[in-house]
Amino acid sequence: MQDTAHMARAIELAARGHGGTSPNPVVGCVLLDAGGEVVGEGFHAYAGGPHAEIVALREAGERARGGTAYVTLEPCDHTGRTGPCSRALLDAGVTRVVIAVPDPTPKAAGGAARLRAGGVTVTSGPLAEQAERVNAEWLTYARLGRPHVTWKLAATIDGRSAAADGTSRWITSAEARADVHRLRARCDAIVAGIGTVLADDPHLTARPAPADDPSLTAGPVPADDPRPTVRPARPLRVVVDTDARIPPYAKVLDGAAPTLVAIAEDATATGLDADHVRLPRHDGGGLDLHALLKELAAREVVSVFLEGGPTLAGAFVRDGLVDRVIAYVAPALLGAGPAALGEAGVRGIGQAHRLIFDEVSLIGPDVRLTARPVPPPHSREK
Amino acid sequence: MQDTAHMARAIELAARGHGGTSPNPVVGCVLLDAGGEVVGEGFHAYAGGPHAEIVALREAGERARGGTAYVTLEPCDHTGRTGPCSRALLDAGVTRVVIAVPDPTPKAAGGAARLRAGGVTVTSGPLAEQAERVNAEWLTYARLGRPHVTWKLAATIDGRSAAADGTSRWITSAEARADVHRLRARCDAIVAGIGTVLADDPHLTARPAPADDPSLTAGPVPADDPRPTVRPARPLRVVVDTDARIPPYAKVLDGAAPTLVAIAEDATATGLDADHVRLPRHDGGGLDLHALLKELAAREVVSVFLEGGPTLAGAFVRDGLVDRVIAYVAPALLGAGPAALGEAGVRGIGQAHRLIFDEVSLIGPDVRLTARPVPPPHSREK
Repeated sequence: MQDTAHMARAIELAARGHGGTSPNPVVGCVLLDAGGEVVGEGFHAYAGGPHAEIVALREAGERARGGTAYVTLEPCDHTGRTGPCSRALLDAGVTRVVIAVPDPTPKAAGGAARLRAGGVTVTSGPLAEQAERVNAEWLTYARLGRPHVTWKLAATIDGRSAAADGTSRWITSAEARADVHRLRARCDAIVAGIGTVLADDPHLTARPAPADDPSLTAGPVPADDPRPTVRPARPLRVVVDTDARIPPYAKVLDGAAPTLVAIAEDATATGLDADHVRLPRHDGGGLDLHALLKELAAREVVSVFLEGGPTLAGAFVRDGLVDRVIAYVAPALLGAGPAALGEAGVRGIGQAHRLIFDEVSLIGPDVRLTARPVPPPHSREK
Repeated sequence: MQDTAHMARAIELAARGHGGTSPNPVVGCVLLDAGGEVVGEGFHAYAGGPHAEIVALREAGERARGGTAYVTLEPCDHTGRTGPCSRALLDAGVTRVVIAVPDPTPKAAGGAARLRAGGVTVTSGPLAEQAERVNAEWLTYARLGRPHVTWKLAATIDGRSAAADGTSRWITSAEARADVHRLRARCDAIVAGIGTVLADDPHLTARPAPADDPSLTAGPVPADDPRPTVRPARPLRVVVDTDARIPPYAKVLDGAAPTLVAIAEDATATGLDADHVRLPRHDGGGLDLHALLKELAAREVVSVFLEGGPTLAGAFVRDGLVDRVIAYVAPALLGAGPAALGEAGVRGIGQAHRLIFDEVSLIGPDVRLTARPVPPPHSREK
């Protein structure tokens, strides 16, 4: 029971790193002294900054000797921008380490083995599922070599994302739209299809209200926040534009954030001035989305926020590449107009893409549903 | 504050009558003695049974003298199957009556006036909105002369009520389907379109699991439950069948519950053996739904549960005749297939039928959203 409470706290700490640690995982750590008192807490706040264990060890100082560390992810064993945490825990004299999730990367794994070799008792901790959940983006990236994909949709109760005449401003409330900006700011890339760009000419930038996310406030950083500076919320904007149709004046090509245009290998791209990448087609049609995600992973994109385009969303769902669905449901009925999701490879009800609701909440007058696939996409991939 | 707590309790009591009182309202009553002690509680449980005030007065006996009554609806002033409650409160010597909602019917209203004439202090109670809500069905019926309509839909997150090939068994869970049966059993009529009857051949009966609804249990009735017998859950089944296409072997025509087939005045109905009613068409097309509801009101149908048929649902929404929406959202994606709601008279986003979410809950793995129109339909009607 004690173990569970300490690990729950470590998970809570880990969550504070959301939006700042990419391409690193979020990690939380709680340190007890030999008598079972909490003497240190830490989380990984930004890539290049100290790891959770180091933050907690600094706070604990000598009191860590003979103590126990609760970590949401196996301590790293490699020297990257910081030294290995396994070594730091050994040096501090910690005698027991409880780990919720093993590190799946060959590069960083081995921390548990090194600790055991150093005489530390290493046990698999409780709340593995919650610890997986808090680190879903990075674990997907680490295990599958592709970014974690969150598909966002906004629709009426009857599943329409616009009215019959195409108008959609606004289906959801200002509160829901602010929430979207908050979630965009946490991701490494925002992906939209060319259809959406041509129809709506969106900026695809993250403009969270400062009050929504303390990590984006320009004000003084709290004393216990190790982040050195305000993180600029400038996720990469990605346009899936198979046939290179993007107009040069598209807002998504302004200088507000970096933009990558993904086009087909055989597309004619005369006059495409923007940063772009050529990718193979899927069955001779739209882009191969696996190739797209591989390309983004190579650019250290850990998390993708997929917006706009029932066609593009349908292709992602069809390919089993959506890891989380966030649906903003507005209390409204339209009865006609485009659906939020297009063709996703389903003929009969038996082939429906089944999910599990993880969270249901009210955002202003709207309902936000968060769901994930069951079974998870990586268990369906070959 | 005391007033609010007592009225909240009266509303709670009123809710216990749901499903049993039609064509009467649900009503709850809390009685205090002169010193402010609760000495009686009651609710109206079934049509023909004692009114809430009478139940509470019986419990209080002589202790009601000089006391206060909290009632969710203005006490009746007419002699129907029972005597007037206004008279009973006067006879018992109650000196103060707090009323949440005035009675809108000319026949029963006047209770407050009679009480005042008898020297009782009558005040408008708190929680009027909640008291309206608990009695939404009957108040709609009493004010508009038509039944209250609840439209139920079951769909995926992307708003599909079936897959591309038409299969839909099952989109939602067994728990959600049991919940639907529980709600059906509370209504006076279940309405479906001929399209649904031809496609799915539904029974349209209420088959709640006994454990779901104590009022349907055949076991011993609790001592404080004044209902004499188990209420048979046999709502009237109504098929909107403009052109009289219903086949004689349709399950909805079996003997499990009464059935009414609504057909157009000019329909050829050779061989239609079932109980039916002829109604005018709306703009020369489908049936005039106002006429349908008027016909049902004449048969003392206070509450309608509208199911099945995106076309029929669209027509009800278009005409402002949906008073409550209950959406079961399954954690699944289809990307194709029929939408839950058809044409509802909306072209642009500005004409969207706007609602307010009243309740969001988890029913098994599904989410149930309950919403009502804003402004309410009766304020839009001429």
